[in-house]
Amino acid sequence: MSFLNFFTRNRSAPVARERLQVLLAHERAFAGRTDLAERLQKEILAAIAKHIPIDGDKVVVRLERGQQVSTLEIDIEVPEQALARG
Amino acid sequence: MSFLNFFTRNRSAPVARERLQVLLAHERAFAGRTDLAERLQKEILAAIAKHIPIDGDKVVVRLERGQQVSTLEIDIEVPEQALARG
Repeated sequence: MSFLNFFTRNRSAPVARERLQVLLAHERAFAGRTDLAERLQKEILAAIAKHIPIDGDKVVVRLERGQQVSTLEIDIEVPEQALARG
Repeated sequence: MSFLNFFTRNRSAPVARERLQVLLAHERAFAGRTDLAERLQKEILAAIAKHIPIDGDKVVVRLERGQQVSTLEIDIEVPEQALARG
């Protein structure tokens, strides 16, 4: 989970980048329960896409499925031209 | 951000609980940019509600708005009766 480096990154980086990171963890009560992480991935990306243009090359998705806990990480960098439009 | 305690919690806890936690961080390129964290909150909850029943008493939402980074934390415990239905 690289969520923390989102905040500790070198602030003095010259380039003004815009980033959105989503971490989702699903702890299932017992192994047989449906795994929501994968199902929610599409819907969360669709919700985000309503607000900012998504460039497939600038989206990183990591899905880790454990016995009882699954984690989904979505890392999106907003394309420069979208920044110009405010 | 209490995401990590989601994983380090005492595994021997007797009660089989099911939990879903979402963390979202939005780093804006410059201060004037629209803040997505709050906007996405409703849409992410609506996406989750399609898959599991949401009991308002068991949902905790924390929104922290900084100059350049806003964070949204949604913590949901799945109601027991929903567990019975698999």
